Amino acid sequence: MAVTTLTTEQREKILKPLLSSGWEMVENRDAIIKKYSFKDFNEAFGFMTRVALKADKADHHPEWFNVYNRVEVTLSTHDCQGLSTNDIELATFCDEAAK
Amino acid sequence: MAVTTLTTEQREKILKPLLSSGWEMVENRDAIIKKYSFKDFNEAFGFMTRVALKADKADHHPEWFNVYNRVEVTLSTHDCQGLSTNDIELATFCDEAAK
Repeated sequence: MAVTTLTTEQREKILKPLLSSGWEMVENRDAIIKKYSFKDFNEAFGFMTRVALKADKADHHPEWFNVYNRVEVTLSTHDCQGLSTNDIELATFCDEAAK
Repeated sequence: MAVTTLTTEQREKILKPLLSSGWEMVENRDAIIKKYSFKDFNEAFGFMTRVALKADKADHHPEWFNVYNRVEVTLSTHDCQGLSTNDIELATFCDEAAK
């Protein structure tokens, strides 16, 4: 089944909680971004490695930027040009991995 | 010894070759950037992992952006606010790792 963007109901139910926990909508784009800060590079890249394994397994990849202890993760779904449930799942995993 | 920015002579001898091999000066900043393209995310993140280990060992870290098979690496030295020999070394390693 083709990936589709989140419905209005899904945005209310599963996107909104993320937007209350540090994720933000990207300007002019149906995408979300979160800026994580870690103790050091070791922790930051450890986080990235966990997310990378998860992402590649799900064949759904982040756009991300890292410098030293900071990681900025942007999520959106290429196939539907917007947010899908795949992004919600990966965002939730990112939050878990960053704990 | 404090890290210092590259001298004019060093820029000629060790920076110039990098600028002939895909590295570019960042606009308005004493930093270099290179955009690598890999087969897929597995290769791209494999490259990042090798660079991450090297960088953390040398305590000299990249600024980098990744989406799927693409990795953009920016190098500059925080302590001297510009390019140092640490950047030349890490740039050279990146090129090796990307082969």
